[in-house]
Amino acid sequence: DFMRALEEVHPAFGVSEEELQQVIQNGIIHYDGIVDELLKSGLLFVEQVRSSTRTPLVSILLHGPPGSGKTALGASIAQSSEYPFIKLISPDNMVGFSEAQKVSAITKVFTDSYKSPLSVVVVDDIERLIDWTPMGARFSNSVLQTLLVLFKRRPPKGRRLLIIATSSLRPMLTDLGLSETFDSELRVPPITSLRALEHVVQEVELFPSDQHRKRAMRMLEEAGFGGGDEFHPKLQIGVKKLLSIIEMARQEPENVAERLTSALLDLRS
Amino acid sequence: DFMRALEEVHPAFGVSEEELQQVIQNGIIHYDGIVDELLKSGLLFVEQVRSSTRTPLVSILLHGPPGSGKTALGASIAQSSEYPFIKLISPDNMVGFSEAQKVSAITKVFTDSYKSPLSVVVVDDIERLIDWTPMGARFSNSVLQTLLVLFKRRPPKGRRLLIIATSSLRPMLTDLGLSETFDSELRVPPITSLRALEHVVQEVELFPSDQHRKRAMRMLEEAGFGGGDEFHPKLQIGVKKLLSIIEMARQEPENVAERLTSALLDLRS
Amino acid sequence: DFMRALEEVHPAFGVSEEELQQVIQNGIIHYDGIVDELLKSGLLFVEQVRSSTRTPLVSILLHGPPGSGKTALGASIAQSSEYPFIKLISPDNMVGFSEAQKVSAITKVFTDSYKSPLSVVVVDDIERLIDWTPMGARFSNSVLQTLLVLFKRRPPKGRRLLIIATSSLRPMLTDLGLSETFDSELRVPPITSLRALEHVVQEVELFPSDQHRKRAMRMLEEAGFGGGDEFHPKLQIGVKKLLSIIEMARQEPENVAERLTSALLDLRS
Amino acid sequence: DFMRALEEVHPAFGVSEEELQQVIQNGIIHYDGIVDELLKSGLLFVEQVRSSTRTPLVSILLHGPPGSGKTALGASIAQSSEYPFIKLISPDNMVGFSEAQKVSAITKVFTDSYKSPLSVVVVDDIERLIDWTPMGARFSNSVLQTLLVLFKRRPPKGRRLLIIATSSLRPMLTDLGLSETFDSELRVPPITSLRALEHVVQEVELFPSDQHRKRAMRMLEEAGFGGGDEFHPKLQIGVKKLLSIIEMARQEPENVAERLTSALLDLRS
Amino acid sequence: DFMRALEEVHPAFGVSEEELQQVIQNGIIHYDGIVDELLKSGLLFVEQVRSSTRTPLVSILLHGPPGSGKTALGASIAQSSEYPFIKLISPDNMVGFSEAQKVSAITKVFTDSYKSPLSVVVVDDIERLIDWTPMGARFSNSVLQTLLVLFKRRPPKGRRLLIIATSSLRPMLTDLGLSETFDSELRVPPITSLRALEHVVQEVELFPSDQHRKRAMRMLEEAGFGGGDEFHPKLQIGVKKLLSIIEMARQEPENVAERLTSALLDLRS
Amino acid sequence: DFMRALEEVHPAFGVSEEELQQVIQNGIIHYDGIVDELLKSGLLFVEQVRSSTRTPLVSILLHGPPGSGKTALGASIAQSSEYPFIKLISPDNMVGFSEAQKVSAITKVFTDSYKSPLSVVVVDDIERLIDWTPMGARFSNSVLQTLLVLFKRRPPKGRRLLIIATSSLRPMLTDLGLSETFDSELRVPPITSLRALEHVVQEVELFPSDQHRKRAMRMLEEAGFGGGDEFHPKLQIGVKKLLSIIEMARQEPENVAERLTSALLDLRS
Ligand SMILES: Nc1ncnc2c1ncn2[C@@H]1O[C@H](COP(=O)(O)OP(=O)(O)OP(=O)(O)O)[C@@H](O)[C@H]1O
Ligand SMILES: Nc1ncnc2c1ncn2[C@@H]1O[C@H](COP(=O)(O)OP(=O)(O)OP(=O)(O)O)[C@@H](O)[C@H]1O
Ligand SMILES: Nc1ncnc2c1ncn2[C@@H]1O[C@H](COP(=O)(O)OP(=O)(O)OP(=O)(O)O)[C@@H](O)[C@H]1O
Ligand SMILES: Nc1ncnc2c1ncn2[C@@H]1O[C@H](COP(=O)(O)OP(=O)(O)OP(=O)(O)O)[C@@H](O)[C@H]1O
Ligand SMILES: Nc1ncnc2c1ncn2[C@@H]1O[C@H](COP(=O)(O)OP(=O)(O)OP(=O)(O)O)[C@@H](O)[C@H]1O
Ligand SMILES: Nc1ncnc2c1ncn2[C@@H]1O[C@H](COP(=O)(O)OP(=O)(O)OP(=O)(O)O)[C@@H](O)[C@H]1O
Ligand SMILES: [Mg+2]
Ligand SMILES: [Mg+2]
Ligand SMILES: [Mg+2]
Ligand SMILES: [Mg+2]
Ligand SMILES: [Mg+2]
Ligand SMILES: [Mg+2]
Repeated sequence: DFMRALEEVHPAFGVSEEELQQVIQNGIIHYDGIVDELLKSGLLFVEQVRSSTRTPLVSILLHGPPGSGKTALGASIAQSSEYPFIKLISPDNMVGFSEAQKVSAITKVFTDSYKSPLSVVVVDDIERLIDWTPMGARFSNSVLQTLLVLFKRRPPKGRRLLIIATSSLRPMLTDLGLSETFDSELRVPPITSLRALEHVVQEVELFPSDQHRKRAMRMLEEAGFGGGDEFHPKLQIGVKKLLSIIEMARQEPENVAERLTSALLDLRS
Repeated sequence: DFMRALEEVHPAFGVSEEELQQVIQNGIIHYDGIVDELLKSGLLFVEQVRSSTRTPLVSILLHGPPGSGKTALGASIAQSSEYPFIKLISPDNMVGFSEAQKVSAITKVFTDSYKSPLSVVVVDDIERLIDWTPMGARFSNSVLQTLLVLFKRRPPKGRRLLIIATSSLRPMLTDLGLSETFDSELRVPPITSLRALEHVVQEVELFPSDQHRKRAMRMLEEAGFGGGDEFHPKLQIGVKKLLSIIEMARQEPENVAERLTSALLDLRS
Repeated sequence: DFMRALEEVHPAFGVSEEELQQVIQNGIIHYDGIVDELLKSGLLFVEQVRSSTRTPLVSILLHGPPGSGKTALGASIAQSSEYPFIKLISPDNMVGFSEAQKVSAITKVFTDSYKSPLSVVVVDDIERLIDWTPMGARFSNSVLQTLLVLFKRRPPKGRRLLIIATSSLRPMLTDLGLSETFDSELRVPPITSLRALEHVVQEVELFPSDQHRKRAMRMLEEAGFGGGDEFHPKLQIGVKKLLSIIEMARQEPENVAERLTSALLDLRS
Repeated sequence: DFMRALEEVHPAFGVSEEELQQVIQNGIIHYDGIVDELLKSGLLFVEQVRSSTRTPLVSILLHGPPGSGKTALGASIAQSSEYPFIKLISPDNMVGFSEAQKVSAITKVFTDSYKSPLSVVVVDDIERLIDWTPMGARFSNSVLQTLLVLFKRRPPKGRRLLIIATSSLRPMLTDLGLSETFDSELRVPPITSLRALEHVVQEVELFPSDQHRKRAMRMLEEAGFGGGDEFHPKLQIGVKKLLSIIEMARQEPENVAERLTSALLDLRS
Repeated sequence: DFMRALEEVHPAFGVSEEELQQVIQNGIIHYDGIVDELLKSGLLFVEQVRSSTRTPLVSILLHGPPGSGKTALGASIAQSSEYPFIKLISPDNMVGFSEAQKVSAITKVFTDSYKSPLSVVVVDDIERLIDWTPMGARFSNSVLQTLLVLFKRRPPKGRRLLIIATSSLRPMLTDLGLSETFDSELRVPPITSLRALEHVVQEVELFPSDQHRKRAMRMLEEAGFGGGDEFHPKLQIGVKKLLSIIEMARQEPENVAERLTSALLDLRS
Repeated sequence: DFMRALEEVHPAFGVSEEELQQVIQNGIIHYDGIVDELLKSGLLFVEQVRSSTRTPLVSILLHGPPGSGKTALGASIAQSSEYPFIKLISPDNMVGFSEAQKVSAITKVFTDSYKSPLSVVVVDDIERLIDWTPMGARFSNSVLQTLLVLFKRRPPKGRRLLIIATSSLRPMLTDLGLSETFDSELRVPPITSLRALEHVVQEVELFPSDQHRKRAMRMLEEAGFGGGDEFHPKLQIGVKKLLSIIEMARQEPENVAERLTSALLDLRS
């Protein structure tokens, strides 16, 4: 089965530019210092793999709440490595695959990477790759076992590999014995300050003028999102969801500020 | 298996007018303000997909008790979008399908939708699509995982997609991690007021005259369905069940009001 | 698998007179008013399907203890409908079928029924059709899901269908989400009065003379089956089991009354 | 699978004299009145099937502790029916069968039986036929469901069938819903009196003389097997095990009585 | 599957001398009276099968802690029977077999045995044959059911069979319903006395002189293995493990006694 | 399946020098006395197999926390045996194998080993070989059963075999009944003393001068890793992880000591 599955997957080398672009469609907005820190940390590992002879394999995990930007950041770091081999392993490309086909497709990317002197592989959304369901704790053990081995298997002599994995369910990774396979972990936080939110809003030009934007920010502050006070609701939203809410608000040009505020208030209930 | 299953499904483009008609056989009766609100909300999302460049994918969930009209409303919104691609994914068309065949058929509709600049896909009755049984919490994990990915997978550049899903079991969706994949949720309530009920009864011409109808409404009021009072039974019935009860009552023309009343009283025990 | 299974099942149209006869081999004895009431209720639904344009699909459930006569009554109602398409779906004809074959055979009957303007389908013994075992709550989820969809799937325009299902395990149906798919439920009770029992005994000519029968009834009354008194044993027996006990008693012509009495007493222990 | 399985089983009609003989190899010893009662009860059912027109299907269950003689008695009753069709369904002939093959083989015997006007089918050792294991309550649900249907399925018009089933695990049958399918149950008890034991010992000529046997019986009485007294050990042994112990004792001709006594004492610890 | 599996197994008759030798590689050391008793008991059953006409099937179980010598003793008894058919069923020869292949291979040995007038079959290590794991109580039910039937199935007329089974997990056998299929059970104990240990040590010539051995025994006695005293550690070791420890100790000729003592002390912690 | 799987695996004899080298890529650093002790113990077993005639099979287990050096040490011992047959069974070479393929590949190595007079087989990372997941305690029972048999199966006459297995999960081995199959166990501890750590750091030339290294050691001591004191954090790190941390620290040449210290402090949280 596995052998047959292997044949069905055609070889793929080099850099999958297009796929990477697809997952960063809305770009990286530098709404906060943490964004730059994360990118910088990522690049440090890129350099370690490039230069150190004793660690031909380095693996890192980007984890954080849903929609916090893990996939976009991981792809970003991979892209800026400028390694000759950059590949994205994503559940989006494996819809309807049998377990054996998934194992085969994943394995193939790693085997291909061993042919390049320098490679980076982004393993996106581990929970989806292993078909995880919290109900009954079901998952594909064969995909899990494949990841457990591939994340630790050293590339052959003279080859070097950086693995960047993403997940929203870090505790599950620990329960499955996956988290101890990573050399390092980076947490991607949600947006929690009005300043960061304002940065995003400005970047996507939600408001026709600074005045409009300022008015909206005041409205949010009055709704309690200014923070500081314990009685006030806390802002906590992934950048992905924020961008989605912004577009809904944009539908009613006369009520943008109101819709933004009520959508954010809805989120917490 | 998956590959073979794919072949067995023939291509299907454009708008499945007939299928949509089939699920709105009894039309949409505007028995209450909520009906119009739901239709209007739906059309707002239709417009967002059409106009916003930053959200090429929007997904909404219609949920509510059995028979409350979710499928008919979802199909209605889809129909009025007038998008070039409108498709209904329904368990009715997948009787006897293996898991792989279901996954394949569902995936095919989404893949087809990516070829149209504007598409709407109605995913009807999620619990049946995933073969859900409360006993032992059994379900098809492969169909579930397919939905989890497809509901979040962005269409390729230049394509836009509105997903309208329906379900009677919202808590189950949350337990399965499905509800956090929706951009928005709309609740379809049952009928709870005598006024709404009267509206329906009038629309389907259950009574030969206004007098007959009025007498029946009084009988229902006396039976306690008038509401307001805490000691009285509460009216709570989906429009689908109500239409069924009305037809049974119609069988004994001389006793329509009595049968209607007793059928509604039976429902609560 | 499903496709192959479909081929193995040959087309079948029209009325399966013989099969219906087979399950009413001992006729319908009108031992009690309830028997006529049940038959009349059944015929009301037959008429509703024939006449109402808004309910092209009506489904009813006959439930009651083992051997109470559900199958015979269901077949009786179906037969008297005189619809052009009358079919019995029975586990008796599916011994050794795989799950896929069962699903296929069941689906075929429904698909065939959609070709007739008026159809009645008797779905006998749901617990056996879904391979139900209380131990470990095992059952065929694929057959269950098939029933869940078929019991609600509307026939195409211009076609009408009456579904009559039977089961001894109503609580199980509720747990599986099946009972809410029925438009109506009819309970088939066991025999609990000596008068009804006497009616049966007389009908099958167990005793050579009225005198003999009267003597036997007195013996049963003395054994406490007369009822009324709380200290006395309660009579509670399905008509099917009663007919079986009667034939055993008939084996010893000299002791018929005694054997009848002791068999009924045995039942309760 | 089922179809292919069917082909592998070749037709078999008539009476399987040899198989029946094989399970009564040591004959029926009339060690107690109960033995004759059981045989007589069995023959009453044989007569009922032969004569009554209203019960073309009668099924009885022989149950009792391991080795009490159920199989030998069942085969004996079947043999003395002198029906034209007598068949034994035994796990001995199904070693290594898949579930589908078992279902097919069992179904075939019943289908064959429907071709004879009068048939008796012995279904031996239900727990083995359904692959029952107490650990984890595992069993073959497909064989179970087959039995549940076949035990209740009426033979076609003009055919009559007696089913004799055996089992050591009556409570399990109830849990699986099997016991309510039988028209009658007969309990086969173990040997509990010294008189019955002496009868067996005499029949198989364990001792060279009456004197030897009497001495042995006294020894058993002194060991407490005489009963009556509460402080004494109770004799409780299936006839099959007793015959086995007797043969072991026979190995040391000088110590037969001692070995018999100690083997019986061992059994209780 | 089963049929195909059968073909893959080639016929094998007669005595598998070599296989039996392989499992008694280190011979039988008569370190204790119990060894001779066990061999004698075994031979009594050999004689019973040979001579008694009423028990053509006798089955015995050798059970005891791991490494106590069950397999070697079983093979020994089989070998000394000098029956024309002697076969060993061992997990060693079934590595990688599917369940169906195991069932087929086991069944074949029994079927072959029925062709010889006198046969002995050694069924070694039941827990491994049924793939037993305590974790989750997993095992092959199909192999188990095969054994349950074969251990009780009488050989055809004129054939006689002795079954010798071994297991370290007697309680598991009881839970699985296997232990009640044996006519007799023999317990193979571990070595618990210094005298027996000395016997073994002497037999394998661990020490160059009697003096050396005596000194070692004193050392063991001082370490508390002399027994008698409750505060002292108890000696309890299978002969197989003891032979292994002896060979390790032999590696350091100058420290044999010390290593032996410390290895035995280690065992208890 | 198994047979087909067998064919897909091509024969492999002799010594797999390259594979062994691959797992000792960073050499063996003698950072502590325990390292030499472990190697010496290993060689004692190598000698026992070579010389003793009574123990043609010896199996040992190397266990210890993740990254403590089990695989490198096992491979080292195997390599220095200079036996004609040395093989490594590693999950790295079985990615994507089905259970049957794993069983087949593992069995093949053992079968091949039986052809050499002297063999050593390293069975690396048992938990991965059996696809172990703590969640739900899932594992491949067929691989487990294969190991349970192969670890105890004696090589044929004249052949001798040393088995070296490794695992990080010794308690799991016990629960699965695997640990009692080993003749001996060796624990590979993590690094817990600053002296050992300094030894490693020196060996890999992390610091440009002795002065730099000394300064770093003082910093670690001040951070509390000197030990002795109960209030201070305990150093506990596998040599593999330590080497990885060292390379990360090397990335910032100006802050090596600081990064080393903070990385070690991070580990404990
Ligand atoms: N600073 C940022 N970091 C990450 N993404 C950003 C940032 N600014 C804007 N984005 C946009 O936000 C979106 C983040 O979505 P992304 O899929 O990466 O989130 P995610 O955490 O992977 O979501 P999920 O939990 O669903 O997998 C992308 O469209 C990206 O272009
Ligand atoms: N205002 C309304 N909204 C929805 N349906 C209506 C309305 N008025 C009339 N109907 C009719 O009521 C029926 C509603 O049934 P529908 O199948 O849509 O309910 P549902 O909630 O999807 O049921 P289920 O829970 O069984 O899936 C349809 O026949 C529709 O034509
Ligand atoms: N009034 C009656 N109602 C139903 N059956 C009757 C009646 N009078 C006589 N009978 C006979 O009694 C028998 C009833 O058996 P039937 O199989 O219908 O019962 P059931 O409730 O379906 O049993 P089960 O629970 O085993 O499915 C039939 O043989 C039928 O001919
Ligand atoms: N009166 C008797 N009744 C039954 N069997 C008898 C009697 N007298 C002697 N026998 C012999 O005793 C043996 C009974 O064994 P049998 O296999 O019938 O018992 P069983 O209850 O079916 O055992 P199991 O519980 O193992 O299936 C047979 O060999 C039979 O010939
Ligand atoms: N008296 C004895 N009884 C049994 N075996 C002996 C005896 N003396 C020496 N031996 C040797 O000891 C070893 C016993 O190992 P054997 O495999 O029979 O034990 P076992 O109980 O079957 O082990 P396991 O529990 O692992 O199956 C054999 O090599 C045998 O030659
Ligand atoms: N004394 C030593 N012992 C073992 N390995 C050492 C030693 N010194 C240096 N090393 C190096 O450390 C690494 C140890 O890694 P190894 O894979 O053997 O650890 P492991 O315990 O098997 O890890 P895992 O638990 O992940 O299987 C190897 O690269 C090896 O070259
Ligand atoms: Mg993501
Ligand atoms: Mg619906
Ligand atoms: Mg019925
Ligand atoms: Mg029996
Ligand atoms: Mg053994
Ligand atoms: Mg390792």
